Amino acid sequence: MKSLQVRLASRPVGEPKAENFDVAEAELPGITDGQLAVRVIWLSLDPYMRGRMSDARSYATPVGIGEVMTGGTVAQVVASKHPKFQDGDFVLGMFGWQSHAVSDGVGLRKLDPAHAPLSTAVGVLGMPGLTAYVGLLDIGEPKEGETVVVSAASGAVGSVVGQLAKIKGARAVGVAGSAEKVAYVTEQLGFDACVSHRSDTLRDDLKAVCPNGIDVYYENVGGATLDAALSLMNPFGRIPVCGMISQYNATTLAEGPSRSQLMRQILTDRLKIQGFIVTDRYDRLKAFLEEVGGYIRDGRLIYKEDITQDLENAPEAFMGLLQGRNFGKLLVQVSEDPTRG
Amino acid sequence: MKSLQVRLASRPVGEPKAENFDVAEAELPGITDGQLAVRVIWLSLDPYMRGRMSDARSYATPVGIGEVMTGGTVAQVVASKHPKFQDGDFVLGMFGWQSHAVSDGVGLRKLDPAHAPLSTAVGVLGMPGLTAYVGLLDIGEPKEGETVVVSAASGAVGSVVGQLAKIKGARAVGVAGSAEKVAYVTEQLGFDACVSHRSDTLRDDLKAVCPNGIDVYYENVGGATLDAALSLMNPFGRIPVCGMISQYNATTLAEGPSRSQLMRQILTDRLKIQGFIVTDRYDRLKAFLEEVGGYIRDGRLIYKEDITQDLENAPEAFMGLLQGRNFGKLLVQVSEDPTRG
Repeated sequence: MKSLQVRLASRPVGEPKAENFDVAEAELPGITDGQLAVRVIWLSLDPYMRGRMSDARSYATPVGIGEVMTGGTVAQVVASKHPKFQDGDFVLGMFGWQSHAVSDGVGLRKLDPAHAPLSTAVGVLGMPGLTAYVGLLDIGEPKEGETVVVSAASGAVGSVVGQLAKIKGARAVGVAGSAEKVAYVTEQLGFDACVSHRSDTLRDDLKAVCPNGIDVYYENVGGATLDAALSLMNPFGRIPVCGMISQYNATTLAEGPSRSQLMRQILTDRLKIQGFIVTDRYDRLKAFLEEVGGYIRDGRLIYKEDITQDLENAPEAFMGLLQGRNFGKLLVQVSEDPTRG
Repeated sequence: MKSLQVRLASRPVGEPKAENFDVAEAELPGITDGQLAVRVIWLSLDPYMRGRMSDARSYATPVGIGEVMTGGTVAQVVASKHPKFQDGDFVLGMFGWQSHAVSDGVGLRKLDPAHAPLSTAVGVLGMPGLTAYVGLLDIGEPKEGETVVVSAASGAVGSVVGQLAKIKGARAVGVAGSAEKVAYVTEQLGFDACVSHRSDTLRDDLKAVCPNGIDVYYENVGGATLDAALSLMNPFGRIPVCGMISQYNATTLAEGPSRSQLMRQILTDRLKIQGFIVTDRYDRLKAFLEEVGGYIRDGRLIYKEDITQDLENAPEAFMGLLQGRNFGKLLVQVSEDPTRG
């Protein structure tokens, strides 16, 4: 069985470029007892993958040069000698940026397409959704009537953060890029307000829509949006630090106020700033799936997918993600999804 | 009744100087129904008072020019027309830097000298002790076998932090100034190790005594000690931010690494950095008094007092505190303590 693979060709300096990826076919070994073979249907593209392309110290092992790019996928079993999996089963697994794979079944979760669309398992009901859930509820702890601000508000994580904040009785304010995204965040997702980080008056714009200050700032991007949000934090504010997309391609540290100033604000305003990584939080998966799955079935929480066809296009789609060019959860459709009309 | 008072004469720029204080006598009004008069015995001097001398934005109202300096005190009732207080009663209250005061009884707590030495009510069993308790236990959450580092380790707060950490089964490592303090921290307080922030190799010294990294860094000082501690934090480390003494006299923000770098470390290492102010945490007073009072009676937790005689000397003692010249909890004995031998 052949697998089309996207491998890391070289480590990017700054923005990843096409030359950092290598697209090639590999011949997979046949399956033996206890193994199964899958074809990948949906590949999730997420900002964290930029970190995996670097060998800087991080919380996770980098992808090696020549190795298949890592990534969450929904796949269908095409052959099985594993007692728990049968031909045709749908599974969630980390098969990475490739069309086919062989597995011993460890770490796979079966998916029931009658329960929710398959692609949601790598989106709103997958890692991005869980990231929103634990960051907002466990670290942000929004209370009724408080103001929650989330950056990258139209994205896979931010869109869930704001909608969850609303469900919990808080005001939700988004920061997004294009006018189209800003409109989507208020009109479709139902946030109370949304401003654009492209505005020259971002701080004033944000202040205008946060008349009572900010109680929770859910941090996805860093940079100017962080500056603006910090200047508006209320005493006892909480800042879950989920990501800093604006810094991922940076080759030098961002200029800006000193660490000392931030520490003084933390003290004076009794802020809590806490970083987290979703993979440390899988103990919350069951509660998340029950709660957020319910909101999706009820229509209280909606999601948007941005689908790129064909694995060959994954590198370009990923480069666009880091520049904010996606609109909704970015997915690559690697092969046909038989459950979709 | 006359009261000798230390008032704020002018706001300091940088280090407070004698000229910023004004020592003078005031004539207090006679007490009316519902009031009581006290003579102050013990005045606590604490770093937070530097903030009260400035009118920069803070969590507390600054002392006004010409007003009596704020401060926690132990006092004895000398006259009472208040039903709950009698002549001779000992009380804890915020009477400030003065020898006598009139009160309506609001916010006063009666003290039983048979329970613990009176001076401890503004020290190890008072605000500094509670500060150590809530910062370490509620924010730091040390676990058995973890490494807790505390700056200003021989001080009123730091000495309790380290001893509590030991009682909870953690390793306690201090950072202090003089060789005498460093020796006291390990030999008397029983910390596992202590290094000096005056060393040119502070970071290496700290690393050598924290072979497994740092899980909790209890922040009292900022500056170079913070730099060293941050560089050694373990994943999931916690940093309760209690104070930044080294910065209190600063007229400009400390140079140093950018905020952006700190935010990235928070994310990568999943750190929690949280500021707190003890006055927000008085709901923990009862638990604190029971638990830490018990340790003191058992001799498991010891404390050291640095006593300055006479209110006139309070300004100089306070200036020394900000420079780390005190050794132990700094107190001013304003008048005789009849319960002390």
